[in-house]
Amino acid sequence: MQLGRVVGTVVSTMKEARMKELKLQVLRLLDERGKETGAYAVAVDAVGAGQGDVVLFAGGSSARQTVITDGKPTDATIMAIVDSWDVEGRVVYEASPSSEDAERKWTDPARAGRGKERS
Amino acid sequence: MQLGRVVGTVVSTMKEARMKELKLQVLRLLDERGKETGAYAVAVDAVGAGQGDVVLFAGGSSARQTVITDGKPTDATIMAIVDSWDVEGRVVYEASPSSEDAERKWTDPARAGRGKERS
Amino acid sequence: MQLGRVVGTVVSTMKEARMKELKLQVLRLLDERGKETGAYAVAVDAVGAGQGDVVLFAGGSSARQTVITDGKPTDATIMAIVDSWDVEGRVVYEASPSSEDAERKWTDPARAGRGKERS
Amino acid sequence: MQLGRVVGTVVSTMKEARMKELKLQVLRLLDERGKETGAYAVAVDAVGAGQGDVVLFAGGSSARQTVITDGKPTDATIMAIVDSWDVEGRVVYEASPSSEDAERKWTDPARAGRGKERS
Amino acid sequence: MQLGRVVGTVVSTMKEARMKELKLQVLRLLDERGKETGAYAVAVDAVGAGQGDVVLFAGGSSARQTVITDGKPTDATIMAIVDSWDVEGRVVYEASPSSEDAERKWTDPARAGRGKERS
Repeated sequence: MQLGRVVGTVVSTMKEARMKELKLQVLRLLDERGKETGAYAVAVDAVGAGQGDVVLFAGGSSARQTVITDGKPTDATIMAIVDSWDVEGRVVYEASPSSEDAERKWTDPARAGRGKERS
Repeated sequence: MQLGRVVGTVVSTMKEARMKELKLQVLRLLDERGKETGAYAVAVDAVGAGQGDVVLFAGGSSARQTVITDGKPTDATIMAIVDSWDVEGRVVYEASPSSEDAERKWTDPARAGRGKERS
Repeated sequence: MQLGRVVGTVVSTMKEARMKELKLQVLRLLDERGKETGAYAVAVDAVGAGQGDVVLFAGGSSARQTVITDGKPTDATIMAIVDSWDVEGRVVYEASPSSEDAERKWTDPARAGRGKERS
Repeated sequence: MQLGRVVGTVVSTMKEARMKELKLQVLRLLDERGKETGAYAVAVDAVGAGQGDVVLFAGGSSARQTVITDGKPTDATIMAIVDSWDVEGRVVYEASPSSEDAERKWTDPARAGRGKERS
Repeated sequence: MQLGRVVGTVVSTMKEARMKELKLQVLRLLDERGKETGAYAVAVDAVGAGQGDVVLFAGGSSARQTVITDGKPTDATIMAIVDSWDVEGRVVYEASPSSEDAERKWTDPARAGRGKERS
């Protein structure tokens, strides 16, 4: 899987019948230090990711192994929203409490104000 | 999926039997800001895209998950015509009302004259 | 699919049993303007392409969706011989009447003498 | 397969249901001489690799051919922990006896003190 | 398929159960002129290739279409040992009679002494 940040959305009314109802997100790919690589992907969202979220997406036939993408012509599917990741003992990224999705908000008030990236 | 613009067509009379009847389009790939990347693909068209249309295409085995490409030797299939996409709150691209396909024309006259790309 | 030109052949007597009888062609990959990209592929030939022919080949699991490659360990298969292609209204390539395969020769004498590439 | 070194972990509580229980490792990819290539992957761990281990991972649909990843949306799976590899008769890498996993420790005391990479 | 030269071996005792008994070879990839590209792959050997042999390997799901790799987590499998290949009428490579595998030795004594690469 590769890491990406959700930066936008693609709108299409003329699409293959099996793609109806699937949300298409624009991702900017990140390297393992959290920096943008310059590459991007348009991915189907299988986990309810929002603008700004850091996510993992799977490519190829693996993109079709989720409940909503089974048998559909997608070659990139967001299958996880990233809470945090570390490299060599250092936290590279930690989701901020300002996430739109309340369920993912940090409950520890001490964490409020932490930046999204600390690379 | 990757974004591309339809720029041409490939004609072949000597092709694998399963490829008969499938239209082969030449796409120039676009990055998420709408700029050409220098890469291209020849893709089967599953949605009736026309010259100049901005489209999404799926690669690998996902290219065979449409009604017309099932079981066929295509590794790139256009599965959506893009109406518009946005990145970080800004509209990068919006289909113009001059599209050849009347059904996809904008009905709002205020939109007439808008350029195809505003990156 | 990607475009390529057949430039050679690979000979192998020690190969996986399922690959017996399959002809292996060396392709130099072409960009959408007909120029060599510097990349190459060794592909199974499913359509009887000859030295110098411009072809389309499919990669990945799609390379196994032809009658002769079904279930075989090929990840690149020539599935079409290209007659011509155009980009932005201009003919980039047109097969010449000097093709070895008589069936593909142009019947219009006015076409004799046309070059293989006009990019 | 490509070689990589385990350098970190990705934590995600919001992930596709089928990905629950799977450990996500961050790998820095290595070339055949043991040097980092600058590329990375996030891979599911099917063999119990630990921080610092050099591993092999499989991509694409092959990433789903392990007992724990069958039918799951992973496109990269660690399927082997590397003990050693050689290139042109020279040992490029040999796991050190300081590995966390006791079962993989060298039993020959003469080997103690050998570095992890001798490229 | 891509061309590669066998330059080494990877040893792993901790690997996915399905990978047991499979030999892992290190390949340096070659371009169509026989020059190293700088890329490499670790591939399962399905044809008994030896150190120094020039081989073809298949990637992706096609790497699982051999008798010994069926259903196994390999994304690169050697499926042919190359005897020779030519590009534009010139022999780029021809296996030398000094091959370790006696069955592949040239029987024509006039060929003894020919170099492995004549690019």
